[in-house]
Amino acid sequence: MMQKRAVLLVVLLLHSHVVFASDPDPVLDFCVAPKSSANSNHSCKNSSAVTVEDFTFSGIKYPGNYSQTGFSAMPVNSNVFPGLNTLGMSFVRADFDVGGINVPHFHPRATETAFVLEGRIYSGFVDTSNRIFAKVVEKGEVMVFPRGLLHFQMNVGDTPASILGSFNSQNPGLQKIPTAIFGSGIKEELLEKAFGLSAREIAKLRRKFVPH
Amino acid sequence: MMQKRAVLLVVLLLHSHVVFASDPDPVLDFCVAPKSSANSNHSCKNSSAVTVEDFTFSGIKYPGNYSQTGFSAMPVNSNVFPGLNTLGMSFVRADFDVGGINVPHFHPRATETAFVLEGRIYSGFVDTSNRIFAKVVEKGEVMVFPRGLLHFQMNVGDTPASILGSFNSQNPGLQKIPTAIFGSGIKEELLEKAFGLSAREIAKLRRKFVPH
Amino acid sequence: MMQKRAVLLVVLLLHSHVVFASDPDPVLDFCVAPKSSANSNHSCKNSSAVTVEDFTFSGIKYPGNYSQTGFSAMPVNSNVFPGLNTLGMSFVRADFDVGGINVPHFHPRATETAFVLEGRIYSGFVDTSNRIFAKVVEKGEVMVFPRGLLHFQMNVGDTPASILGSFNSQNPGLQKIPTAIFGSGIKEELLEKAFGLSAREIAKLRRKFVPH
Amino acid sequence: MMQKRAVLLVVLLLHSHVVFASDPDPVLDFCVAPKSSANSNHSCKNSSAVTVEDFTFSGIKYPGNYSQTGFSAMPVNSNVFPGLNTLGMSFVRADFDVGGINVPHFHPRATETAFVLEGRIYSGFVDTSNRIFAKVVEKGEVMVFPRGLLHFQMNVGDTPASILGSFNSQNPGLQKIPTAIFGSGIKEELLEKAFGLSAREIAKLRRKFVPH
Amino acid sequence: MMQKRAVLLVVLLLHSHVVFASDPDPVLDFCVAPKSSANSNHSCKNSSAVTVEDFTFSGIKYPGNYSQTGFSAMPVNSNVFPGLNTLGMSFVRADFDVGGINVPHFHPRATETAFVLEGRIYSGFVDTSNRIFAKVVEKGEVMVFPRGLLHFQMNVGDTPASILGSFNSQNPGLQKIPTAIFGSGIKEELLEKAFGLSAREIAKLRRKFVPH
Amino acid sequence: MMQKRAVLLVVLLLHSHVVFASDPDPVLDFCVAPKSSANSNHSCKNSSAVTVEDFTFSGIKYPGNYSQTGFSAMPVNSNVFPGLNTLGMSFVRADFDVGGINVPHFHPRATETAFVLEGRIYSGFVDTSNRIFAKVVEKGEVMVFPRGLLHFQMNVGDTPASILGSFNSQNPGLQKIPTAIFGSGIKEELLEKAFGLSAREIAKLRRKFVPH
Repeated sequence: MMQKRAVLLVVLLLHSHVVFASDPDPVLDFCVAPKSSANSNHSCKNSSAVTVEDFTFSGIKYPGNYSQTGFSAMPVNSNVFPGLNTLGMSFVRADFDVGGINVPHFHPRATETAFVLEGRIYSGFVDTSNRIFAKVVEKGEVMVFPRGLLHFQMNVGDTPASILGSFNSQNPGLQKIPTAIFGSGIKEELLEKAFGLSAREIAKLRRKFVPH
Repeated sequence: MMQKRAVLLVVLLLHSHVVFASDPDPVLDFCVAPKSSANSNHSCKNSSAVTVEDFTFSGIKYPGNYSQTGFSAMPVNSNVFPGLNTLGMSFVRADFDVGGINVPHFHPRATETAFVLEGRIYSGFVDTSNRIFAKVVEKGEVMVFPRGLLHFQMNVGDTPASILGSFNSQNPGLQKIPTAIFGSGIKEELLEKAFGLSAREIAKLRRKFVPH
Repeated sequence: MMQKRAVLLVVLLLHSHVVFASDPDPVLDFCVAPKSSANSNHSCKNSSAVTVEDFTFSGIKYPGNYSQTGFSAMPVNSNVFPGLNTLGMSFVRADFDVGGINVPHFHPRATETAFVLEGRIYSGFVDTSNRIFAKVVEKGEVMVFPRGLLHFQMNVGDTPASILGSFNSQNPGLQKIPTAIFGSGIKEELLEKAFGLSAREIAKLRRKFVPH
Repeated sequence: MMQKRAVLLVVLLLHSHVVFASDPDPVLDFCVAPKSSANSNHSCKNSSAVTVEDFTFSGIKYPGNYSQTGFSAMPVNSNVFPGLNTLGMSFVRADFDVGGINVPHFHPRATETAFVLEGRIYSGFVDTSNRIFAKVVEKGEVMVFPRGLLHFQMNVGDTPASILGSFNSQNPGLQKIPTAIFGSGIKEELLEKAFGLSAREIAKLRRKFVPH
Repeated sequence: MMQKRAVLLVVLLLHSHVVFASDPDPVLDFCVAPKSSANSNHSCKNSSAVTVEDFTFSGIKYPGNYSQTGFSAMPVNSNVFPGLNTLGMSFVRADFDVGGINVPHFHPRATETAFVLEGRIYSGFVDTSNRIFAKVVEKGEVMVFPRGLLHFQMNVGDTPASILGSFNSQNPGLQKIPTAIFGSGIKEELLEKAFGLSAREIAKLRRKFVPH
Repeated sequence: MMQKRAVLLVVLLLHSHVVFASDPDPVLDFCVAPKSSANSNHSCKNSSAVTVEDFTFSGIKYPGNYSQTGFSAMPVNSNVFPGLNTLGMSFVRADFDVGGINVPHFHPRATETAFVLEGRIYSGFVDTSNRIFAKVVEKGEVMVFPRGLLHFQMNVGDTPASILGSFNSQNPGLQKIPTAIFGSGIKEELLEKAFGLSAREIAKLRRKFVPH
C-alpha cells in the first residue's frame, strides 16, 4: 500500500519542475537553491550545508566565444548562481568584438544598469513613444535601460569591448527581437502585414532565424 | 520679495510633470487623478469632489477607426480614466477588420488577459526561449499573455472581431516591434547586422515606419 | 529502512496542500500549475509539457444557471485556469436575470474592472467613509471597484445582463456579506448588538443563510 | 503676469489633496508627512526639521469614550501619526465595556495582529468559504486576522477589556458591515433581495444606520 | 525500481529545507505552515485541518528569563506561530529588568512599532546620516523604528519594563551588533582598522562575544 | 488676497522636501527627477526635456580619494543620477588602497552584487544567526550580500583594488557600524553594557567617531 502511494508521488515529481516563481521581499536571510533542482526554486538548501562558495561566482572572469554578430553574453541568473535565489538580483557579462552588436532585445522582468568594463559602445533604448535615447558610452561609464524597454549595443571602438550588466530580478528574462519575431513561427501572413514585406522577404528572414 | 519666489515656483511647475510613478499596494480607498494633471499623478482629487462618474468609463462602447493594418485599439489607462489611478488595473478595446492584425508588440509593465467579444482571432505569444504559443480563439474565450512577452493577433474569421484586454497595471505601456525597431532611428549598421539585411532593405523598412 | 522514510514522506504530503501563496513579480515567463495539484501552487508544470491550451480558457462562453437571486457567477482564478498561476490576474463572468442581483460582497485581494457585456446594471461600491458611488452602467461601459471595498449590482434592464469582471490577483477571494455574516456561525448576541435586531430576527436571518 | 499664474496654481492646489497613495518598499530612511498636509502624502518634512517626537505617539495611553455598543477605537494611521508615512505599519487601541462589541468589519489593505492588553474577548474571523474561526482570547494572547477578511470581537469577561491591534499598512482602512450595508444608501430593492427581508424590515435597519 | 526512485526522493528532501521565501501580497486567505516543516515554508496545512488554534498564540503571556544585560526577548515569527505564514506580520515581547538593555540591533526585513506595556524605556534609532532619534517612552506610548535602521532600548525606570514590538514581515530577522561584529569571526585586522583598536582590545571583545 | 495665498504656498514648499519614497513597480517608462529637486522625488522632468544624458553616468571613471582606512566609495543613487528615479536600481564604485578596508556596514533597503574590477579582496557577510561567510575574491569574481545583512571588505592583495557594487533599490541606504554606534550619541551607559566596556573605553571610541 505504501509502495503504491510512493510510486504516485515519484511520478508526480518527475513530471513537474519545482521552480521559484517570484521576486518579492525575501523572508529569509537567503535561500540557496539546491543543486538537485535544475531551475531556480523555492526549496532552500539546508542552511548548515550552505558555504561562502554559494555566494560567490567565478564563471565570468573571461569572455565567451563570439557569435556571428561578434558578441558573447554570459547571463548569470539564479539558475546559474543558486545563491541569488530570492535575493532579487542577477547580472551578465557581455563582450563585443570590433563592430560586434547586441541585437535589439528587452528583459521582461528587470531594469538593467550597464557598466562599460572596456571599450566604446554605441548604446541605447527606445521608449514606448518610439523615441530613441542613444549615445556612445565608454570605459567606466554607465547606462540604464528601464524595465522592459527595447535596447541594443554596438562596439564602435577599435578594440574589443565588454560590459557588466546588472538586473533587479533574479531572472530578468531576455527576448531578442530578430529570433523572437522571425525565428519562432509566427504566421507568415501576419508578419507580412506587420512589416509590409512580401512573402519572399519574410521567408528569407525566417530562414535566417528559425533554428535548424 | 514674495513675488520673486512665486515666479520661481511657477517656472518649476511648468517644467516638470508631476506624475504618479508606481503600481504598488494602495494606501487609500482610491486616488482619482485631477483633470488638471495631464498625466497619471500622485495628487488625488479632493475626495468631496469625487463622484461615481470618476469610476465609470463610457469611451469604448464603439470601435475606433481601423488603421492600415485593419486594426483599432483604444487603450484606457489612468491617463484616460483617472479613477484607475493607484488601483493597479487598466484595459483596452481592440477591433479587427477581416484579416486585420495587431502587430507583434509587448507591454513592459503588465500581464494581459484578452477576452474575445466577437469573431475568431489567431492569437499568440513567444516565450523567452523563442517558443510560440498560438491558436485561434473565438467569441467568449480568453487568452493570457504573460507580463512583458511578445504577442500578436490576426482576425482569421469572416467578420470583424473585437477583444477586451485587461492589464494588472494602471499604465502597462506598449512597444510595437515594427515601429520601435525601424521607426525610432536605431543606427542602420546595427539593424543590418541584427537582421542580416542590406542597407537598401533596412532603408526601405525605415521609410515605412519612421513618422513623417 | 527506505520504506519507513517513504511512508513518512507520503503521509506528510497527503496532509498538506502545496499551494502557491503570493501575487508578486514573477521570476519566470510563466508557471503553469500542474493538474495534479488541486490548488494554485508553486510547482510549475514541466515547460516541455506546456501547450497553448494552458493559456487559453473556454469555460465562460455561456452563462451558468441562475441562483435564487437571479444571478450566476463563474469565477476563473488560477485554480480553475492554471495558466494564470504567478501572472497576477484572473476574471469572472457574471450573468443577471431581469431583476437579478449580485449581493453586497468584496474581494479581499484585488481591484475589479467590470465591463458590461449586455444589459443595464445598477452598480456601485461603498468607500471606508460609508459613502456610496453607484449608477446604472450599460453595454460597453466599465466600472472599477477599488481593492477590498464592498460592491453590488442589480440588473435594472428589461433583458438579461452580463459582465466580465477582471482582477489584479490570480485569486482575489470573495466574501458575500449575507452568508459570511449570517451563515457562518458568529455568536448570536454579537449579531443582535451589531445590527440592533432581536434574537428572533437574527435567528430568522441565520436560517436563511446557514447551509443545510 | 506672474500673478495670474500664481492664482491658477493656488486654485489647483486648493482643489486637490496631495496624498500618499502606496505601501511599497521605502526608498528613504523615513518620510515624515508635514503637518500642513492634512492627509498622509508624498512630500516629506525637511529632514532637518524632523525630531524624535515625529517617531513617538502618546495619544492612546487612555481609552476613549464607549459607543452605544460599549466599544471605543482609536485608530493610529499615518494621518494621525505622520512619522508612519511610507513605513508600512499602523495600529489601533480598542477598548470594550463589559459585553461591548466590535461589529463585524474588515480592513481592505492589511492583516491585523490583535494583542489582548486586558480582559477576555470572544474574537474571530470568517474565511472566503464562510468558515468561522473564533474563540475567547485573554490577556497576553494574540489573534491574527488575515488581510481583508471579516472579523469581530465581544468582551465576554466581567471587566472592561482592551486590545492593541497592529497592521501592515500605514492606512489599512475599515469597513463596518452594519453601517456600510445599511447606512450608505444602497438601493432598497437590492438589499431586500440580498437579505431576504421585507421593505419594512430594511427600512427599519436603514433608520438605525443612516447618519442623521 | 520504485524503491530506488523513492530513495532518491527521500535523500533530496532530507537535504533541503522547504522554506517559504517571500513577504508579498497573499493569494490565499491564509496558508498555515504545517508543524512538520521546521521553518516557515510554502506548503500550507490542508485547510480542513486548520482550526482557530492556528491563528491564536498564547506563548508570550509571561516574561522570559533575563539575559546578562537584564533583557528577555520572545520573538514570534512564522516559525514559532505558523498561522502568520504569508500574512506579512510578526511580533515580539521584550522584558527589561531595572537598567536592562536591548543592545543596538536592527531587523533587515521590517519596520517595527514598539508599544510600551509597562515602565519607562530610553528608546531610539540612528538614521543613515548617523543622526540619533532617542527619548524616554513610557507605558501606553509607541515608538516606530523604520525598516533596517539600528535601534536600542534601556529600562531607565525603577521597575521592570516591557514592550510589544510588531513587524511588517512574517520573519523580520535580527542582527545584534556586538555579537554579529565581535562574535562571528570577522578577520581581526579588519576589526582593528575599523574601530581603531589594538589587537589586544579586539581579542578581549571577541572573547566576550564569540560563543564558547 | 492672491498674494497672501501665494506666500502661504511658498512657505509650505520651502519647509518640505518633496521626495520620492518608494521602490515599487514603475508605472511609467521612466521618471527622471528634475535637477531643481535636491532629493529623489516623485515629480518627473517633462519628458520632452529628457535626453540620453539623463540615462548615462560618467562620474565613476576614476577612483576618489582614500579615507583614513585606505578606502574610497562613490555611491551613485537616484539623488546623484536622477535617471535612476523609480527604476529600482543604483550602484557604487569602491576603491581600496593596499590593506584598505570597507568597515562593517549594511544597506537597509537592498541586496548588493559586488563585482571585483581589480585586485584581491577579503569579502564577507554575517547572517542573522551570527554565522560568517567570507573569502578572498579576485578580479572578475562576484559576491552577493543579501539585503540588510552586515558585510565588510579588505584589500589583501599587493596592489590597489576596486569593485563595482550594484543594488536593487534606487537608494539602498548605508549604515557604517563604527560611526553609527559610537559616533551618533547613543547613551554611554547603554553602550558600556552592550559591549562590556568601561566608561573610559567607550569615551575613547566615541572620541574617534563623533564628528568634530
